Amino acid sequence: MSTDTNADADAESTSKCGASTTESDADASSSGSKCGASSSTTDDSSSTCGASSNSSSSSSSTCGASSSSSNDSSGNEREVGATVADFDADPGRLTAVGLGPGHPEGMTERAKTALLEAEHVVGYTTYIELIPNEITKAADELYDTPMCGEVSRTEEAIDRTLAGNDVAIVGSGDPNVYALAGLALEILESKGATASMVDFDVVPGVPAAQSCAARLGAPLVNDTVSVSLSDHLVPMPEIESRLHAVASENFTITIYNPWSRKRRENFEKCCEILLTHRDKGTPVGIVHGAGREDEQVMITELGELEELGESEIIDMTTTIVVGTEDTYVWDDRMVTPRGYETKYDY
Amino acid sequence: MSTDTNADADAESTSKCGASTTESDADASSSGSKCGASSSTTDDSSSTCGASSNSSSSSSSTCGASSSSSNDSSGNEREVGATVADFDADPGRLTAVGLGPGHPEGMTERAKTALLEAEHVVGYTTYIELIPNEITKAADELYDTPMCGEVSRTEEAIDRTLAGNDVAIVGSGDPNVYALAGLALEILESKGATASMVDFDVVPGVPAAQSCAARLGAPLVNDTVSVSLSDHLVPMPEIESRLHAVASENFTITIYNPWSRKRRENFEKCCEILLTHRDKGTPVGIVHGAGREDEQVMITELGELEELGESEIIDMTTTIVVGTEDTYVWDDRMVTPRGYETKYDY
Repeated sequence: MSTDTNADADAESTSKCGASTTESDADASSSGSKCGASSSTTDDSSSTCGASSNSSSSSSSTCGASSSSSNDSSGNEREVGATVADFDADPGRLTAVGLGPGHPEGMTERAKTALLEAEHVVGYTTYIELIPNEITKAADELYDTPMCGEVSRTEEAIDRTLAGNDVAIVGSGDPNVYALAGLALEILESKGATASMVDFDVVPGVPAAQSCAARLGAPLVNDTVSVSLSDHLVPMPEIESRLHAVASENFTITIYNPWSRKRRENFEKCCEILLTHRDKGTPVGIVHGAGREDEQVMITELGELEELGESEIIDMTTTIVVGTEDTYVWDDRMVTPRGYETKYDY
Repeated sequence: MSTDTNADADAESTSKCGASTTESDADASSSGSKCGASSSTTDDSSSTCGASSNSSSSSSSTCGASSSSSNDSSGNEREVGATVADFDADPGRLTAVGLGPGHPEGMTERAKTALLEAEHVVGYTTYIELIPNEITKAADELYDTPMCGEVSRTEEAIDRTLAGNDVAIVGSGDPNVYALAGLALEILESKGATASMVDFDVVPGVPAAQSCAARLGAPLVNDTVSVSLSDHLVPMPEIESRLHAVASENFTITIYNPWSRKRRENFEKCCEILLTHRDKGTPVGIVHGAGREDEQVMITELGELEELGESEIIDMTTTIVVGTEDTYVWDDRMVTPRGYETKYDY
């Protein structure tokens, strides 16, 4: 996803192994009404949200759901409002927490602890809903926005931290995989704060590539690469160049954000590039919503991939694993040999 | 690590963000005495180990620690002993479980459940020791081998499964990252079994790249690649070619297995290749033993990397993250911008 009226399911879809987001949500570029934030106070007694110089009802406030939501609808670019100088409180702690594939059993103990210790939990609505109730109940406030607005949402998390709250900003997968750990640091910097001033920490999670590979068998055991087909933040010629570079070497390739109606051509181009370097019989694993109710798993061949672009198994919540020239399919599993067979007799 | 007398810390060191393995263990290529397996029965009443046609004390048995251990010392190559025809029992379940970075808080709930449900838990000694006592106590048997023998250990796990036991084979990080999920499937196949016959499953874990990136900040938020410098199973010219291909594109690069005394040249060659494509000021993050007692974190520049090869921070348990041309260091964090700054004003 991305921000505001230009939503394209970029960061959010790093959680594709499990994201229940539908394609129509992911492509909600024309629907400003989907971009409303909601904030729920779960414990009246301890909420301390709001920059001291910006009341939460002011239109320039970046802390507080209602104003943030109205900013969201104002356009594609928005300026960061409050800076560190606007906050009187001692900053709290900001933790970027990776939820893993999306089901509670896929979370680490450390992620659970970080969420339980946070006073405010901020995230995309779908992810907030994935968190077990006993954890969200423990938070003083939940702040969530639908499939849009990760810049304003991340800024909201930071403003709440600068206002003195301990805040967890959540996403599925890992905060370092097409996700918000970097954006949080960039916005902190733009506000004149520092990572150590707010006690910034990252709690890693199981990335989509790993969740999906596990469902497929053992496709990723050697050198591997992740490429996103979203050209929202990276120009397509750069993505094409990367695909050429890695497809000509024997990397396994995990494709994130493979398909949306707006990006048919990216997917078609990707298939074309892969086929210029790899045999059409190369095994390809497709996982949609791993571990969730709408999970679909398919193992196919590279030559068949492009035509699957229009089918429901491939959308922005799908992860695709492209095998190497050594990868084979056995008993419905994708196996990329590690190379032991060249040294050991088994 | 690898097998038997040719140990080189390959698969095991996928866990480098946290592995307490020392360099001398990792390079224990001449010390056959380090390769003894141990098996401890934690519950006498329900152990059912042993192929029906191979008693566990027979020298050809592959099920049972003592005989496996003696096989280990017999040479670099060994044949798989028992095949599926040698087992009368209904096969059990085999689960490859990723422990994550190595501390119990880094495990997922699903990994804990898989270990609690397993009758036998098989793994490298260091990893078995990382599992909380309340979990290992629940197993009927633990089978562990030191830094060597992953082929024989994996075979042992499979034989125990074919003998009717529910077995978990554990490793740190994720079973799909330079690890044993693929080897398990390959050995299953060689024995005439199938993945579905033994109910084979993979429980993903947090890979070292993610654990280390979290310690460094947000270096890996864009397209990324993992390359191992171990040439035990992949020829060095192939590794060099891959490094050239990805260094010339703007990928972040995570380097696994960066350095051992036997592979000084690989590390030097890697630094040389990276410097032909990237500026010597490119930020590089080095994490040794993330989350463990011997953790060390350093952020340096590409031009300084080679000379650090001889220092204690870089060994086979270290993970190195090489930034892109956009990566910068801010407040002791490595940040690779996602590209939002090109679209949003913050």
